[in-house]
Formats: sequence, structure tokens, C-alpha cells
Amino acid sequence: MISAGILDRSSSVPLHTQLTQGLRAAVVEGRLAAGEALPSTRVLADDLGVARGTVVAAYDTLVGEGYLLARPGARTIVAALPRHAVVPALVSTTPTASASAFIDLLPGRPGTRGLADAAWRSAWRRASSTDPESDISDEQGSPALRAEIARHLGRTRGVVVDPGDVIVTAGTSDALLLAALALPARRPDGIRRFGVENPGYPRVRMILERVGVEMVPLPVTPGEGLDLDTVEKHDDLDAVIVTPHHHYPLGSRLDAAARARLVAWARATGTMVIEGDYDSEFPHGRAPLPPLRLLDPQGVILIGTLSKVLSPALRFGWVVASGAVRDRLRETRADLDLSVSTVTQHALALYLADESLARHTARRRRDYRHRRRLVLEALEPVADVQLAAMNGGLHAVALLPAVSPGEESRLVARIAARGVLVTGLGAYAFPDAPTDLPAGLVLGYAEPTTVRLAEALAVVAGVVSDVGSDVRLGAVAGVVSDVPSELGGVTGRS
Amino acid sequence: MISAGILDRSSSVPLHTQLTQGLRAAVVEGRLAAGEALPSTRVLADDLGVARGTVVAAYDTLVGEGYLLARPGARTIVAALPRHAVVPALVSTTPTASASAFIDLLPGRPGTRGLADAAWRSAWRRASSTDPESDISDEQGSPALRAEIARHLGRTRGVVVDPGDVIVTAGTSDALLLAALALPARRPDGIRRFGVENPGYPRVRMILERVGVEMVPLPVTPGEGLDLDTVEKHDDLDAVIVTPHHHYPLGSRLDAAARARLVAWARATGTMVIEGDYDSEFPHGRAPLPPLRLLDPQGVILIGTLSKVLSPALRFGWVVASGAVRDRLRETRADLDLSVSTVTQHALALYLADESLARHTARRRRDYRHRRRLVLEALEPVADVQLAAMNGGLHAVALLPAVSPGEESRLVARIAARGVLVTGLGAYAFPDAPTDLPAGLVLGYAEPTTVRLAEALAVVAGVVSDVGSDVRLGAVAGVVSDVPSELGGVTGRS
Repeated sequence: MISAGILDRSSSVPLHTQLTQGLRAAVVEGRLAAGEALPSTRVLADDLGVARGTVVAAYDTLVGEGYLLARPGARTIVAALPRHAVVPALVSTTPTASASAFIDLLPGRPGTRGLADAAWRSAWRRASSTDPESDISDEQGSPALRAEIARHLGRTRGVVVDPGDVIVTAGTSDALLLAALALPARRPDGIRRFGVENPGYPRVRMILERVGVEMVPLPVTPGEGLDLDTVEKHDDLDAVIVTPHHHYPLGSRLDAAARARLVAWARATGTMVIEGDYDSEFPHGRAPLPPLRLLDPQGVILIGTLSKVLSPALRFGWVVASGAVRDRLRETRADLDLSVSTVTQHALALYLADESLARHTARRRRDYRHRRRLVLEALEPVADVQLAAMNGGLHAVALLPAVSPGEESRLVARIAARGVLVTGLGAYAFPDAPTDLPAGLVLGYAEPTTVRLAEALAVVAGVVSDVGSDVRLGAVAGVVSDVPSELGGVTGRS
Repeated sequence: MISAGILDRSSSVPLHTQLTQGLRAAVVEGRLAAGEALPSTRVLADDLGVARGTVVAAYDTLVGEGYLLARPGARTIVAALPRHAVVPALVSTTPTASASAFIDLLPGRPGTRGLADAAWRSAWRRASSTDPESDISDEQGSPALRAEIARHLGRTRGVVVDPGDVIVTAGTSDALLLAALALPARRPDGIRRFGVENPGYPRVRMILERVGVEMVPLPVTPGEGLDLDTVEKHDDLDAVIVTPHHHYPLGSRLDAAARARLVAWARATGTMVIEGDYDSEFPHGRAPLPPLRLLDPQGVILIGTLSKVLSPALRFGWVVASGAVRDRLRETRADLDLSVSTVTQHALALYLADESLARHTARRRRDYRHRRRLVLEALEPVADVQLAAMNGGLHAVALLPAVSPGEESRLVARIAARGVLVTGLGAYAFPDAPTDLPAGLVLGYAEPTTVRLAEALAVVAGVVSDVGSDVRLGAVAGVVSDVPSELGGVTGRS
């Protein structure tokens, strides 16, 4: 079906570019049909007589552009293209990064337009104007940067943090890995057991599984939040990982009484609390509570990140811990080695020191509040939609109690067929643990232009309304019926 | 002994700065004597009524400046100051990062003077002039950077690398962690078992231990290299980690026959080979062999780094792998998340693309060859010194067959008492595994100015000559007799 004639070996255009262009044209012109599975990269590479990486590169580019859909553990398929996407692609067959056929509402993507302003460029210019150090003098992070992070947390989160208690990390992922490897196991077999929110941030599960931590799902219910009755039944956990400020993704918050209860339980059972504080920079009409850490600095590890306020592509965050657990984290960091370039550290220290981060955050906050209003305007009037997670951050959850959870992935596919990428709530749940989670959609609203956002929200509202009017699911979604709800596992990143 | 009067709480000078200045003055003025153990940070913090982090910060600064010596698992002690170090410290009591009292010959520290030239600054300026991405599009690293790394390896190492086979990492440490977590265990209990060079790079042991990999020490003998007879007795290893180009730290090289033998054994026993290629940019008079990977791309994971050619503070390196193991590494990287900022990735792609890295490497190569000659001139004439590891890289090993290995740490302390930091060879050996390793010193010669290097080498030559003349060790080293050979575990970094 994809013939070797797609490539011209006498051309100076690289083979992967030729392959990308040829496949794109085949999709756009309908020679490869929506829903059709492509050959595996290995098979196509053999057929065409090229390196497998050439095919991988072409597929990757086209997935990024939205012409193909990658599916974990299954073959890549041709995406159902919205009609308006076809025209510009036909005009130009050269790849452009921004030419995605989809409006992307996948969560975890902040708006970065305008981030590279004079202050940003100045910070990096100054950071790269002196010779890098010959060695790493501090695996915990540069003292200047740690002092700035402590000051930042004092100003934004109302906690007094000793710079000596801060460890810089390559984002939340690196912080979770560090904590997972640093904490001791209470069981004699040495296997660590962590309590994890269900639903929750999927990367927590991915990382803990990689390092052999056993996970105990702790139920979180829309509206009610973390089920503390279940939590309190456990006295065998080495740690719990929670998002008390703004549960990911449901948005519930632990109130003061629940916080006291959680910390008291943790202290009584010797369980370390790992607090993920990933988007508290963006409260929308609700005053933020200070971090759990305030209640028990020795018993709570606070994980913070610049992924939501700047970009996940920066790979920057931190851990704050005190006392014995701080020492354990420091020793583990020293063994694993520093993970953040000192150039990045210098640049961010400068960017924090002159209040550029605060100014950027204030700008983003105004923008995200406006976008949140667009979400409310588009989806509040829709019958059978209950909006959640609206009190902060940069995503919304549209709960759909009238839709059965089993139909959720068809709904996601149907919205994708109209050119909008969203994530089903089911992608956040433990695959094998029971949950009462209703069907729902997680909608990242920070990244597209507001025009495209409004357009995408109208599509979501339209599809959901159709469902509410008892239009049978599946009738429209035929061609993409096997698109999984997580669309390549993209469920946000912090 | 350290009274609360050291702090003035009415002053605007931060407490940790006051404490640093007060302690520095006490050392310089002899009120705290060389070899004297300081109170633990906890005790001193309680005595002075300050946060423990304040004391930690002060100790850290003074260790960095060379006034104190940190010892793993033991109390920090006052360093024996060379006389010339005292004067500038008395003049100024404000901390300056460069005011180290010691000439530092600890290995793993490249020369970075002049690195931040116009090309370097331009690469970072361009990389930071556009808004960062809203999300990570490729956890393997940006395609542009991976293509540059592939080109770099083709040019410098003579291997054809598919950019799809490259995964960017935050240096060798991150690459080792990735490989350790990605490779499957053959044993039913799921515990991975890796063969590791003894002596070898200590961080390999630190990282593998943190992730629960069982280690089998594989003997390396000065002059003879990796003991393949012992290697071939094993058929139960999931992987071996080797430095075939230039053993770290002994400098031996696997010749073509030994390479073929190692790869044949690995293939026959299903053992993955992890090849550390950390300093092949600096051959000194010996043509480099191509990487082991050339012999069996499916069976060898190649780990590379910019730590030696630029700086370890950049935290940048890569893994190259093919076939099934490449897929495993990619999946593990996707789960653990990207570890390198895209700003850094863009800057390095630009720096590689315009041949700035090649030019910098050529400059460094000339400089290091000159420094290597200084080492030869200073230490070849010394009786009882056998120089090793002189055929490449940026460290030398002075083997001391006349010294008993048990005396090595006293020798290191004695050299430190004369103001020069070196590492004993014993720090590279497995603590509990038998080894025939002679006493020796590992000397990093890349970082100090050549004037300071020559001065330091004269000190080393003098102390070693004294030992050769049967002057009893310990007579001079009294005050610092309990300084451990590894001086805080600094044994290089790649």
C-alpha cells in the first residue's frame, strides 16, 4: 500500500523528510483512510529498505502534526481529519511544527506565548556569559537558586523555608523518582509501598512502577475529594502522594479539618506525606490554603514545579523537606547526581530574583481566568455536564453522569473526529482498581489561542449535547472507534 | 568553643554569612586548630539557636573554600591550611567562591576557562530567544539535537548512528540510571545483576545500589586491564558496565582481540554490554579504537557525555542503542520523563551544528597535551612512581608499588597538608571485594592554571619522593591522619 516509489534516492531531500511528505500527502488525499492501521515501523522500514529510525521519525512528525494517531501497544493509525485541516496541508507538503490539524485541549500545557520576553532573554544571556563551573559544587542545587526558591515559596505559599531544605529537581518527575528511591521501606522484604490517589496523575504510577514501589490506590470522589476513611484503614504505607491543594485532575481541595486528619494519621502511622503543589499559582476565586507542610515540616515532603507557570519543557522543580527525611533526600540526590544544568540554575535564579517570574505569573493568571470564563460560558449551559476543577489551575473537568464510563473513549474519539483533542477521565484511574468515577472529559484550556479555544469548546459542547439528546454513540465515531481515551497516554505533565 | 557571640542578630548580614565569616576567621587565626572536629550541625544549631540549615550552609561554604574537610559518616574537621592560604583570608572575611586554599587535582574537572566565548553565548542567546514549547514533544530529545549527536559520533568515533537510536540524558549518571531501570532481570526474583569494573567509577556503584541492582565486581589490573578470564566465568549477569576505551581510572584499553572476546562472551551469555565512552575526545598519542558498539549494535549500549569536553555542570550526555534494547530504553525514558530542558537542548544543538564543540575540543586537546607533559616531567623522574592512564583523557594515575595500600590514605592526607587535593586509588575499589590494586594517586590535571598545576605536581613529587626515601609516613601527617582518602567521596564525574 505504501510503495517504495514514495522515496527518491537521487534527491537531496533526506529520506525521512521524503517519507513524511509522502505519507502526509497520502493521508490528505485519502489514499490512506481514517482509522486505517499503518505497517509497524519495522515492517515498513524493511519494505522500503530504509533504517527503522527513518520511519519512526516520519511517524513521529505526522503524529505531532495530527495526521496519525499513536496508540500505546498497538499500531499507529490514520487520524480522522476534520475537513478544514485538509486545505492548508494540500497547499504545502513541507512539514511545519505548528501545522497541527487538531486543536489540542490535552491538559498540562501552559500558555508560553510571550514568555521569551526581555527579562527571560536577559536571564539566559547573563547565565551563559560566564564560563561554566568545572565541577558540581552542590548536588542540592546552587545556594543562590535555593534561596530564591525559598523566598518564592514564602511569598506565594506563606511558608518559611530554609534554603538548606530545598533540593532542585528536573521537574515533578525527577522529584517523585528521588522521593521513591530515598524513602525507607518498613516491610522486611524491602519493598516500598506508597498510597496513591485514584484517579490521579498517571506519571506517578509510571515512575513508581519503574522503581518497584508497590502502589495502594486511595479513592478520590468528585466533589468529596480524598476518601480519608479508606486512608485511615492503612497503617502499612511508607508514604502517600497527594495533591491537597487542587486534586489532579478532579480539582477537589482538602479543607483544614481534612488536612489535620491526614497529617495526624500520617504521624500516628509513621507514613511520610508527599505533597504535590503543581498549580497553586493559579487560584481562580478561592484563596489558597498554605501547604500541608506547614502542619508538619518533618513529616511532609513538598514537591513544587515551574511546569505550569513556565513550561514543562524547562524540566524544573524542587523538593522541600526537613530533618531526617531531608538528609535522606540529600544523600540520595548526591548518589544519583545533580539533574539540572547549572546554566539553567543560574538563569532561573536571576529570573526569580528580579521578580520576572512573579510578573509572568500575574499575566498568565489574568489570561487563564479569562479562559476559565470561556469554559464556563461554553459548557455550563449544557445539560448533563457538571463542571469540576474550576477553582484553580489550567484545566477543567466536564463530568458526564448521563454517559456510562464505558462509552467515554467513544466520546473522546468522536470529539477527535471533529478536530479537538481531549482526554477521558478514565485515563487517570488505576486500570485494575475499582472506582465510582463517572464518565468525564479533562480539558486543558491554557495553550490554544482564545479563538481556537472557543472553537474547540463549541465542538465539545456540541458533541456532549448530542449525547445528552440520546443520539447513539458510535454512529458517528465508527472510523475512529478504536482510538483509546488517553490518545497516546498524554494526560498532563507537572 | 564556638560561642553564641559569633552572631549579631541586630545586623543586616544574614546569619549564615555571619557564621561563615566567624568560623573562617577562627580557622585562619588558629582558634580552631587543624584536625579539630567541629560540632555536628544539629548540636551547633541548637547551641547558637539558629536553624540547622544555617549551620549546614556555613559548613558547606567553608568546605568549598577548603577551610574545613567534610568526611562521609563522620564529623567535619578543620583542614590543615598551607601557610600561603592564610594571608588573603585574613585580609578579607567576605566569602569568595574562588578563594579555595587548596590546589585541586581531584579528577573529573575539565578546564572551562574561555568556554563562554562568542559561539557559546550565541547558542544560548538563540536558544532562549523563542518561547519555550508548551509541552515535551519528544522524551527522547529533540530530533535536531539527536541528529547532531549522531553526526558528532560519526565524525569523532567513526560509528554510523541513527538519530532514532539516540536518547539524551542529564549526563552519564542519568544514562546509568536509565539503563539500570530499563534492562530486564533474568533471575526469577526480578533482581538485576550487573558486572562492574573493580576498580572503577564509584558513581556506578552509588547509582546501582540506589535502584537495587546487585553488583559483581570484575577485576581490572594496572597494565593488563579487565580480567576477561573472570568475566567469562559468568553466565548470570544481565549487563556489564565497562570503559573499554580508557578504563576509569587506570587508563587501560581493551585491544581488538579483547573486544571481540568480550562481545562474543556477551552474545553467548545474553549479557548486555554498557560501554562508557567518557573521554575519548582526548587521545594523547594513541589512535582511538571505534566503540565496542561497532561490533554488535544490538548488544551494546553506548553512553557518551559532554562532561569532560565541556563541563559536568552542564549535565548532558546520551545513550545510543538499537533494536529491542533501544525500545526498552525509550519506553523507560518516556515513563521517567525527559530529563534535559529544551532550552539546553536547543543551545547544544546549535553549538554542535556550527562546529563550535569541535573547535573547543581542539583547543582543550592542545592544552591537555601540554598539561600531560607537565605531569610526565614532574613525576617520571620520581623513583618508585609508575605513571598510568597517560594515553588519554584528563587525569593521570601515579602507581606507588613501594607504598602499602594501607598507607595510601595517609599519603593523600600528607599531600593535602601541603595544600594539594588528590584522590587515592583505593577510593575507586569496591569496599569489600578483594583486589591486587597497588597504592596510587589519581591526579586530575585539567582544571588549575598551569602555574598552579606545576606547583601542585612539585608538591606531589616531593611527598612521594620522601616516602621513597623511607621517611616514615605519619610523622608529618599527624594532624590530618584521619582524613579519608576519598576526601568527601570526590572521585570524578562523567
